[in-house]
Amino acid sequence: MIARAVAGRVQPPSTILGPGDDAAIVAAADGRIAASTDMLVHGRHFRLDWSSPVQIGRKAIAQNGADIAAMGAQCSGFLVSLGCPADTPVSVIDGINEGMWLEAAAAGSAVVGGDLVQSSDLVISITALGDLQGRAPVLRSGARVGDLIAYAGRLGWSAAGLALLLAGRVRTGHDLVLDAHRVPAPPYRAGVEAAEAGAHSLTDVSDGLCSDLGHIAVASGVGMVIDPERLVVPPELHSAATELGVDPVDWILTGGEDHALVGTFDGLGTIPQGWTVIGRVEDRDGGQARPVTVEGRIGSGRTGWTSFEST
Amino acid sequence: MIARAVAGRVQPPSTILGPGDDAAIVAAADGRIAASTDMLVHGRHFRLDWSSPVQIGRKAIAQNGADIAAMGAQCSGFLVSLGCPADTPVSVIDGINEGMWLEAAAAGSAVVGGDLVQSSDLVISITALGDLQGRAPVLRSGARVGDLIAYAGRLGWSAAGLALLLAGRVRTGHDLVLDAHRVPAPPYRAGVEAAEAGAHSLTDVSDGLCSDLGHIAVASGVGMVIDPERLVVPPELHSAATELGVDPVDWILTGGEDHALVGTFDGLGTIPQGWTVIGRVEDRDGGQARPVTVEGRIGSGRTGWTSFEST
Repeated sequence: MIARAVAGRVQPPSTILGPGDDAAIVAAADGRIAASTDMLVHGRHFRLDWSSPVQIGRKAIAQNGADIAAMGAQCSGFLVSLGCPADTPVSVIDGINEGMWLEAAAAGSAVVGGDLVQSSDLVISITALGDLQGRAPVLRSGARVGDLIAYAGRLGWSAAGLALLLAGRVRTGHDLVLDAHRVPAPPYRAGVEAAEAGAHSLTDVSDGLCSDLGHIAVASGVGMVIDPERLVVPPELHSAATELGVDPVDWILTGGEDHALVGTFDGLGTIPQGWTVIGRVEDRDGGQARPVTVEGRIGSGRTGWTSFEST
Repeated sequence: MIARAVAGRVQPPSTILGPGDDAAIVAAADGRIAASTDMLVHGRHFRLDWSSPVQIGRKAIAQNGADIAAMGAQCSGFLVSLGCPADTPVSVIDGINEGMWLEAAAAGSAVVGGDLVQSSDLVISITALGDLQGRAPVLRSGARVGDLIAYAGRLGWSAAGLALLLAGRVRTGHDLVLDAHRVPAPPYRAGVEAAEAGAHSLTDVSDGLCSDLGHIAVASGVGMVIDPERLVVPPELHSAATELGVDPVDWILTGGEDHALVGTFDGLGTIPQGWTVIGRVEDRDGGQARPVTVEGRIGSGRTGWTSFEST
């Protein structure tokens, strides 16, 4: 199976030694490597009855690649471990592998090593490696009072797709939203471009905008104020929300798993193309108690986005 | 749980950024990083009724660190993902974590990042990173006719311990052998020393001496001839074998999971201290058909070590 998984695959120039020996060797030209790992479990992070094997493979890589982009780094290799029940069809393993290679290529990289074992659950564990290309990593702790908050990528799409799936509303008109849940589309390049533009802080939206901005706020000792007027609801989300009778802004504020990037930039500087400003960084001690505030929505009693208050 | 796992832990100087942000950053001073990943599943690679959580954590790190040593590299960081059933006692997670940190320290390194998720099985996935320190990696494909085969570390101990556990012979006299099964002791430094001494090929013994030497033989296009007279049976293995009525040399030739290192060295050069010569590399086309031959034992009909013939 491992031989099948790597047969005919091409490695990028940064792969000094690909799969087949005891370890892979990846270039780390500036003398540092960024590395992040995540585990995905069937029934918890993905479902074979909701997603194709290719989509599952893509999601697993995307989720990890987004962590590298969130440091302002370029993905330079993925190591993948797959635990499969004994009765897993070969086509499922092949599909997951295919999806991993597709998404690794989308991130400008490749699968450089892996392992395949038997397990009860279908379990995917990925480690993503990244190249900082000489730049300082963009940390969660770098936000400063006066910064502008901006994001790149999609917000709320995955949550909308999940809501449709849970409600059994899988009709054709919602394809884009459903696929957004099945395969996130992290804006890999936007991470590098944010770092090049001197972003002060950066993370990816895995848990939800308010929650993940809360991580930056806490790490930086600042407060985040989101202006909901700046949150544009795409027609696809509007349509899904109308069908389900919910407020799409809740998906945007609290929906996870889209792996957008969110960060803060000097309020007097230039915001890179592709980034949308949605708020500002304020002094946490000077007027607001919560790490993240959404102007005009606190206390509205809406469900789904109050959890960030405890971040 | 993740905060508990990293609280109070000290990172080595090679860790530029430890756990807590989207990715860790590890030094890769010579512009390259070695990386290897393995997944371990409860009931298949370890058992909570046979091993303590600390031992399980150590084994998981050791197995991966050995892959780095087998490239001739120094371990420079471990990323760990843990999937746990919902009813896993916190003490088990704490123990596994403690074992991981202990073994990472034994390998001269530390845990630099990780993930914790819920799963049906207890699943551990590790990625080990390594520093080649300016040396060329020692590959499986580098063995040359005329080389001497040598190993460092323990051979057959884990298999002997497993045989005792399966037979229910867990009396005190076998502590060392039983513990060898629970926690392998890869000779991490020996990998670096072999590379420094100019070893031509290197791998770790995860499947068994004959099987893993077979990987070198096939990758290098050579034949391996083991002289069984050179295989010293330690008294602990002799005692366990006598109790079970088996030949301890079979454990040495075919027992996996000790993560000894085995490689080949120039036949006219110096073999580093700590390495034991056990055979020679021959021309595969010139007289022997099998990748690995054990002198005087082929055709003896013994079980347990013939499988390498199909490598």
